[in-house]
Amino acid sequence: MERQRYNIAILGGTGAQGSGLALRLARAGHAVTLGSRDGERARVIATELTTRAEKSIAGADNRAAAAAGEIVLLTVPYAAQRATVEQVLDRLRGKILVDATVPLVPPKVGVVQLPDGGSAVAAIQALAGAAVRVVSAFQSVSAQHLSDLAHDIDCDVLVCGDNSSACDLVIGLCADIGLRGLYAGAIRNSAAAEALTSVLITINRRYRVAGAGIRITGVGES
Amino acid sequence: MERQRYNIAILGGTGAQGSGLALRLARAGHAVTLGSRDGERARVIATELTTRAEKSIAGADNRAAAAAGEIVLLTVPYAAQRATVEQVLDRLRGKILVDATVPLVPPKVGVVQLPDGGSAVAAIQALAGAAVRVVSAFQSVSAQHLSDLAHDIDCDVLVCGDNSSACDLVIGLCADIGLRGLYAGAIRNSAAAEALTSVLITINRRYRVAGAGIRITGVGES
Repeated sequence: MERQRYNIAILGGTGAQGSGLALRLARAGHAVTLGSRDGERARVIATELTTRAEKSIAGADNRAAAAAGEIVLLTVPYAAQRATVEQVLDRLRGKILVDATVPLVPPKVGVVQLPDGGSAVAAIQALAGAAVRVVSAFQSVSAQHLSDLAHDIDCDVLVCGDNSSACDLVIGLCADIGLRGLYAGAIRNSAAAEALTSVLITINRRYRVAGAGIRITGVGES
Repeated sequence: MERQRYNIAILGGTGAQGSGLALRLARAGHAVTLGSRDGERARVIATELTTRAEKSIAGADNRAAAAAGEIVLLTVPYAAQRATVEQVLDRLRGKILVDATVPLVPPKVGVVQLPDGGSAVAAIQALAGAAVRVVSAFQSVSAQHLSDLAHDIDCDVLVCGDNSSACDLVIGLCADIGLRGLYAGAIRNSAAAEALTSVLITINRRYRVAGAGIRITGVGES
């Protein structure tokens, strides 16, 4: 089956995780636009990533990027999550918003500190309403591994969302970049992926490794 | 290094997960006492498990079992968790309580429904106070796999607790039964393991498998 190519915007794409996803999605043939609060900075980083990916990656401010994307990824720090979505909300209607936010609360980022209601991403679905299909994904994938194009990534992606076809599409994007995405339930189940990230940070520290990840066992090939 | 053998009580040990842990811990050489609200039922099940394990397993009511255990495991349904602990609390002082509780709320057990405060096990540490070292473990290990003694289990155990040496001891118990335990942070990080169980239930249903589990990648051999 030929994979569909999408226009994908990555808001907060100048950060480590957004840049890593941009590299891999561009190499898989998608048209990627990096978004940032600062459009000029987005263009500078996009030029650097274009060289590394050997594929053209565009840069723009977050609103212009959100307008350009058929699918919009959100990879901003937790503290900027809600404001960023509010700023581009009118550009998201009818689209899929893939939210990779983890509610880390510095300085104790290794301690699970889920927000009231349980999930930072479910809160965005509640904010955005039914016109935006929010999908939670990519929380557990290390930015360092994403950015290291010489290696495949030994990690699965938990994909949560209330819209089943939107989840399937994101599982397809995972496959495009060599990751196995697994449907992990309704959007509120994103709490599991969000909480797990603090556990992985703790494991990285305790066992002196970088980029611990997860695999789900017992489901086909892992 | 010779492993230490412990007197281990398993409250709610007549259930599927408790029985599976009893089988494997007994085979590893520990002295296991199954606990149940109904001591007679505990003795009947203990006799059955003794035959399967080819090791002697005792049965008693929960209070007597808790008194017998140097280490006490809790494997009751969420609805019975707090009442069971309150009932045996005076028998737990100075001991390690290994709590495998997952806050599943029937009928939607595939939906993450963490309690106020975030973690069902952290709530027990708060209840029990400093005289009991509560360790969270075994949430993600399928009862079916535990009970199938013919096979090793392809799953890691996230071990959380505020007392580091108690966590190390539980990681040792995991190793005794062929599981890799990993220190996953303070007791409130148990929220991650608790939430993950509903995700694994969802994955079992969606992918028509039994006993999905997790592995942490990037940390030594998995």
